[in-house]
Amino acid sequence: MPAEHTVKSFEQQLQRLSNLITQMGGVAEAQVDGAVQAVVRRDVDLAARVMQADHQLDDYERGIEQEAVRMLALRQPVGSDLREILAALKISADLERTGDYAANIAKRSMALAKLPSVRPVSAIPRMGKLVESMLKDVLDAYIDRDVGKAIDAWNRDEELDDLYTSLFREVLTYMMEDPRNITPCTHLLFIAKNLERAGDHATNIAETIHFLVLGQTLTSDRPKHDQSSFLVGPTADVDLHGSGLHGADAVDDL
Amino acid sequence: MPAEHTVKSFEQQLQRLSNLITQMGGVAEAQVDGAVQAVVRRDVDLAARVMQADHQLDDYERGIEQEAVRMLALRQPVGSDLREILAALKISADLERTGDYAANIAKRSMALAKLPSVRPVSAIPRMGKLVESMLKDVLDAYIDRDVGKAIDAWNRDEELDDLYTSLFREVLTYMMEDPRNITPCTHLLFIAKNLERAGDHATNIAETIHFLVLGQTLTSDRPKHDQSSFLVGPTADVDLHGSGLHGADAVDDL
Repeated sequence: MPAEHTVKSFEQQLQRLSNLITQMGGVAEAQVDGAVQAVVRRDVDLAARVMQADHQLDDYERGIEQEAVRMLALRQPVGSDLREILAALKISADLERTGDYAANIAKRSMALAKLPSVRPVSAIPRMGKLVESMLKDVLDAYIDRDVGKAIDAWNRDEELDDLYTSLFREVLTYMMEDPRNITPCTHLLFIAKNLERAGDHATNIAETIHFLVLGQTLTSDRPKHDQSSFLVGPTADVDLHGSGLHGADAVDDL
Repeated sequence: MPAEHTVKSFEQQLQRLSNLITQMGGVAEAQVDGAVQAVVRRDVDLAARVMQADHQLDDYERGIEQEAVRMLALRQPVGSDLREILAALKISADLERTGDYAANIAKRSMALAKLPSVRPVSAIPRMGKLVESMLKDVLDAYIDRDVGKAIDAWNRDEELDDLYTSLFREVLTYMMEDPRNITPCTHLLFIAKNLERAGDHATNIAETIHFLVLGQTLTSDRPKHDQSSFLVGPTADVDLHGSGLHGADAVDDL
């Protein structure tokens, strides 16, 4: 039964690809967690470990890409099998970028650890926990092919954007209070921005799961509430809704 | 001759895909240029136009993705034909992200236009010109399948990272001089970071062209000289080479 054997083997290949994504997702989660811990505990050794581990995600992405390209070329899949492979390519790219953000947070935490501590750091673990929960949920949703769970995670990106916007305002205030806060606060802004971007990649993964399971793109606007780009001062009241710009939800911040 | 007809039609489809990428690249270049002009001239109307035009790049990406998936499913290409389609998918994703950076720069330029002018803005057009030249060259390299030209553009990313790092130092100094500079300078930092990231996407495209033409990945380390993440002060002397961290070239900043 060579035909059946071939079919079974393709299923095994798909399963293997899916397992690689799940493993890679676990590494990405651990990297985000390690990076946030490094910031909070001012732990330079942990930061160095996170930076050194980043290549694992690059390796996973390369491996998944090679596997996917080989399967496309040799198996020439269609329909849901093709979607499985395209989804694996997309998700691995999002996880690799998430790892880049974690490594960059770790890198900046090393600079922060040499500088006076600043109070707005306390918002970082909250943002970190939220990103980690989004990432965990989209990975669970991927394993279970659970579109509802993916959409739940996707919706939580709004909360993350709100946390980022309020941190941004707070940090500007601290910078203005004392020039010695400027350098640590600048690193903090970029750390927060990295977490906000990691959340965007979790929403990308949620969208890919929607496409994978239902065969169509999630058409509703992506939740995008980071309003810090509009701020003209730490307490400025910015009317986004009247500006006609609120519809620019698709504008990706950094 | 139905077989020959089919072959010819596939070539036409590939050509069409390639034309779409080239057009999309032209739009992305124009968006970066518009965004940089909006910053320099404090031109709020131009900024609004750049933001409104961003959906064009989203539409191109979606169209290219649909076309590519259809070709993969119906034609089941192998070898260089498969690489053509995978390259189109990757390049369109990079161009779409480049457009997101342009739209974000435009968005921040609107906030900047309401704030006092700050001198480090003068570095932005230099960074912008460099990004635009990199983008133009990788698109020419794509049209001509010219790996040498792609690698030339790829190497220029180092210069862009250096410009960004020196702008970062300068901006911190301005923030410390006068608290009123803090808000505009913060937007400026993110604008510069967006340009630096757009340059990274141009290097990604160069790498994709290498893969497309030669069938193998560009293995040498990507040029990555943005050292701002390590800064502990605007004039701090940071020894990256002795820290054992210089090898973290692959760490993607934001």
